[in-house]
Amino acid sequence: MIVGKIVGSVVATRKNEKLVGSKFLIVEPLERMDRQQDRLVAIDNVGAGIGEIVLVAQGSAARIGCNLADSPIDAAIVGIVDDAIGLE
Amino acid sequence: MIVGKIVGSVVATRKNEKLVGSKFLIVEPLERMDRQQDRLVAIDNVGAGIGEIVLVAQGSAARIGCNLADSPIDAAIVGIVDDAIGLE
Amino acid sequence: MIVGKIVGSVVATRKNEKLVGSKFLIVEPLERMDRQQDRLVAIDNVGAGIGEIVLVAQGSAARIGCNLADSPIDAAIVGIVDDAIGLE
Amino acid sequence: MIVGKIVGSVVATRKNEKLVGSKFLIVEPLERMDRQQDRLVAIDNVGAGIGEIVLVAQGSAARIGCNLADSPIDAAIVGIVDDAIGLE
Amino acid sequence: MIVGKIVGSVVATRKNEKLVGSKFLIVEPLERMDRQQDRLVAIDNVGAGIGEIVLVAQGSAARIGCNLADSPIDAAIVGIVDDAIGLE
Repeated sequence: MIVGKIVGSVVATRKNEKLVGSKFLIVEPLERMDRQQDRLVAIDNVGAGIGEIVLVAQGSAARIGCNLADSPIDAAIVGIVDDAIGLE
Repeated sequence: MIVGKIVGSVVATRKNEKLVGSKFLIVEPLERMDRQQDRLVAIDNVGAGIGEIVLVAQGSAARIGCNLADSPIDAAIVGIVDDAIGLE
Repeated sequence: MIVGKIVGSVVATRKNEKLVGSKFLIVEPLERMDRQQDRLVAIDNVGAGIGEIVLVAQGSAARIGCNLADSPIDAAIVGIVDDAIGLE
Repeated sequence: MIVGKIVGSVVATRKNEKLVGSKFLIVEPLERMDRQQDRLVAIDNVGAGIGEIVLVAQGSAARIGCNLADSPIDAAIVGIVDDAIGLE
Repeated sequence: MIVGKIVGSVVATRKNEKLVGSKFLIVEPLERMDRQQDRLVAIDNVGAGIGEIVLVAQGSAARIGCNLADSPIDAAIVGIVDDAIGLE
């Protein structure tokens, strides 16, 4: 998993039907997690909002771990970070 | 997932039989999603066209989420982006 | 998927038994697909040869999409590119 | 797998319910494993602690190999390194 | 798959029980396969040794293709390279 900050969101009216109801958030990895800080789009699994620092799972873990095994989802926000050592 | 722009397409007459009928589009990730903007080939799952800004799912999510679980597909266009915050 | 050029091949006499009969080709991604053009080894699923421009699927898609679900294969050549827009 | 050093931990009170009980550790890959040394968050499967050099499995291997097949986990600490050649 | 050279090994006494009996080797990708030559740890599936040039499968292919579907393994040495064109 990586830790990142929610910096935005995406609206897509025309989409795969299994994505209906999902919220798409844009996450910027913290600099220690990715020097390039390449952003990614993750679905929200925990009620997160813009500005929050979150834990993101990628790959098949995002689908299967969020009870969306049949959806075309490759990243999910699975926790809101309250505290951490080692991110600075 | 990442957000990118459709910049082209690929024609392959000789191909794995499970790919017959799929449209192969070339997607260039937005710069904030990938500093190198390395392009990738994704199948079209939503009727997208050149010039559109789209949402792309990668890995097993592309196959399974697009009802192509047995196909050799590792990326799919799963939404057309209408609006977004955090991509600039 | 990515598009690349077949630039070589690999011979491995001692190998996992499920790989017996597979042809291992070396693919160099086109520069627009990977700025570093890091080469990879893919099995051939379409009768491709050196010098051809091909479509490569990676990850579980390579195994499952090529009817080799139990083989230790993470990349496969699944199409021969006849024509394309957006690769230059 | 990669070898890295545990440099921290993450606390997330609000999280996916399948993550309750997991310990989230921050791992910095050794420089020979990743020149950028981009850190990642892995669950602890072996009772590891800060400062230890560990073996980390990523992707579906982390979930399935740690008996957490349904959890949104994409990295796990699966061994504590006692000795090694080739890491310097 | 990638081609690399075995440059070392890892000893981990405390580890996930499914890893007992596996040999962990350190592989350095050839420069044409990865410009950074970031090393990785792979289990040995073919009786390979230090100094040999080998074929490495990554991701779920490593587990499933080596009859270790339930193990936390994300890379495996699946062939010993005798000869090759396109690696220089």
